[in-house]
Amino acid sequence: MAPRHPPENNPILSGDNATFTLQTTTLPPPGPNQTLVKVLYLSNDPAQRAWIQKGSDPERIYTEPVQKGEPMRAFGVCEVVQSSSENLKKGQLIYATSGWSEYALLDAKDCRPLYPDESAGIRPTHFIGALGGPGLTAYYGLVDVVRAKAEDAVVVSGAAGATGSMVVQIAKHIVGCKKVIGIAGGDEKCRWVESLGADVCVNYKAPDFNEQLWRATDGFVEVYFDNVGGEILDLMLTRLKRFGRVAACGAIANYNKGGDPVGVKNWSEIIMNRLEIKGFIVTDAVVTGKSGPMLQKMVEKIKEGKIKIGRDSETVVPTKFEDVPKTWVMLFQGGNQGKLVTQIQ
Amino acid sequence: MAPRHPPENNPILSGDNATFTLQTTTLPPPGPNQTLVKVLYLSNDPAQRAWIQKGSDPERIYTEPVQKGEPMRAFGVCEVVQSSSENLKKGQLIYATSGWSEYALLDAKDCRPLYPDESAGIRPTHFIGALGGPGLTAYYGLVDVVRAKAEDAVVVSGAAGATGSMVVQIAKHIVGCKKVIGIAGGDEKCRWVESLGADVCVNYKAPDFNEQLWRATDGFVEVYFDNVGGEILDLMLTRLKRFGRVAACGAIANYNKGGDPVGVKNWSEIIMNRLEIKGFIVTDAVVTGKSGPMLQKMVEKIKEGKIKIGRDSETVVPTKFEDVPKTWVMLFQGGNQGKLVTQIQ
Repeated sequence: MAPRHPPENNPILSGDNATFTLQTTTLPPPGPNQTLVKVLYLSNDPAQRAWIQKGSDPERIYTEPVQKGEPMRAFGVCEVVQSSSENLKKGQLIYATSGWSEYALLDAKDCRPLYPDESAGIRPTHFIGALGGPGLTAYYGLVDVVRAKAEDAVVVSGAAGATGSMVVQIAKHIVGCKKVIGIAGGDEKCRWVESLGADVCVNYKAPDFNEQLWRATDGFVEVYFDNVGGEILDLMLTRLKRFGRVAACGAIANYNKGGDPVGVKNWSEIIMNRLEIKGFIVTDAVVTGKSGPMLQKMVEKIKEGKIKIGRDSETVVPTKFEDVPKTWVMLFQGGNQGKLVTQIQ
Repeated sequence: MAPRHPPENNPILSGDNATFTLQTTTLPPPGPNQTLVKVLYLSNDPAQRAWIQKGSDPERIYTEPVQKGEPMRAFGVCEVVQSSSENLKKGQLIYATSGWSEYALLDAKDCRPLYPDESAGIRPTHFIGALGGPGLTAYYGLVDVVRAKAEDAVVVSGAAGATGSMVVQIAKHIVGCKKVIGIAGGDEKCRWVESLGADVCVNYKAPDFNEQLWRATDGFVEVYFDNVGGEILDLMLTRLKRFGRVAACGAIANYNKGGDPVGVKNWSEIIMNRLEIKGFIVTDAVVTGKSGPMLQKMVEKIKEGKIKIGRDSETVVPTKFEDVPKTWVMLFQGGNQGKLVTQIQ
């Protein structure tokens, strides 16, 4: 998908209160079991917003907040440039928490070697997309957290995003849900979500979105996979069947609202219709050892051609290093189809 | 507890837009298998608010809304006056959906015979309180819906209410939860909740309520039994441990806010701390056959003296029939300790 460029006057990006500054430092040569890597691709994740949220309580967010002055935390696909570890040779591709940096000095134990398989369509970028956090989030949330079954009708918001597009495909092609309904921003994205297997995808920017969603969810649905929170969540609380389940995955609608998030007004639906809401974080799948078999299943389905991870399932934005924050901000502007990947130029 | 009287100028009760009107009709004599009953006590339940909510969607609330012109629906303890049923004799006490009426003509099959046991402290009013909907709601919600265990610390809002006061006692004396924290409106009520077994009860009307709640929940808690919704729910979402559970039972904070409920702002806590929220309605315990053994367990604990249902566990308000709505409104003004019962004068 052709990348779009964000507006230049975003206060996060420029001006006196810009969130990020550019710093140049000199790295020492790798010590024992260290490796120097060149960052090729950076993962852009809505969750990064929480890591730099002002006033985030370390006890309440699932990971340490990024401190002022520290490099911005990010996942990256990198190439080994120099290594004093036996296991990592020059030229090896690895996955690591590289941060927003051109080069990074990492402990070898924190680098996961990657083996793309071009013949199966598995490219390096997939390890931060379909076969990385987003794909695993989709699988874990849908199958494990809300226990989606073939008899369930499922609604997925952010359906054209990195996670949502995988939820649609897993629901349809792995679980075999009886109906899969996407919600995405724009007709073009919606048609793409339908091409992935959604029975229908509804454009939340359409003036008659409510009516369209009502029609799509006629008879109500059993499962809602929520990537967005806010008003769409509120609507969906009224479209779930009695004993319906919600996988609470993200709330991007509120991520840049500062201290005044949009409140969820239809809480009483949870009571009256006995809904079950479950929040989750993908790292739980990793620490409980569930992620391995899940990824294996997805690779299998990709090789069978059931799950599509074509060029249109990622928005790869060639980016000068100093423009890394600009590309990241596209996430919050709906600028990506599938995974938003920064390719360092 | 001494009843307090609500303000006389409540627009629900008087004026051109009063919600209720008084009507007098003549009842025919009982037909086959019918019974004429005199209403002795009426149950006052926050849920009644939802049954008359303007625009309530019959598909979304768990019971039919009360239609304009119909008698207000209510549960009652009644005495049989005249009966053409073999099974119900004159003078028998029964439980039924009698509505707000002095006398009611009911099908015998809709009347449940009651057997108070004064020696065990079980009075007729208990069948709409500790051994009725509120007691069962407490037991089912705490034990079945959020699976409270001995290793859990539990917070209960509305702790001096009909349901909350039973949650406190069941948590402490049946489940044996390691810590039970009540939230109630007023120091007197809080001390009463502590007398029931709560380790501490916090007054939400106190100026330093937040600080008190923070201290009481130091180390965070595993379970929150929510009877109130609104701002207290929002606070509690920040005081639950990772993988904490919420029994979503009621949202009285919003019941008289019309179309603009207080939104739940801390939804992101559900995600980041992997909370589980489960809505429930007590009738589910009845239709699944779970209620019988639960009530039996409670009767047993009452007879052992573990669960207290003394005079202070109900606020019985002697009420002229035309003032029935006035007594009901006390529910939303925090005017009751334990179950609020209308005794028809």
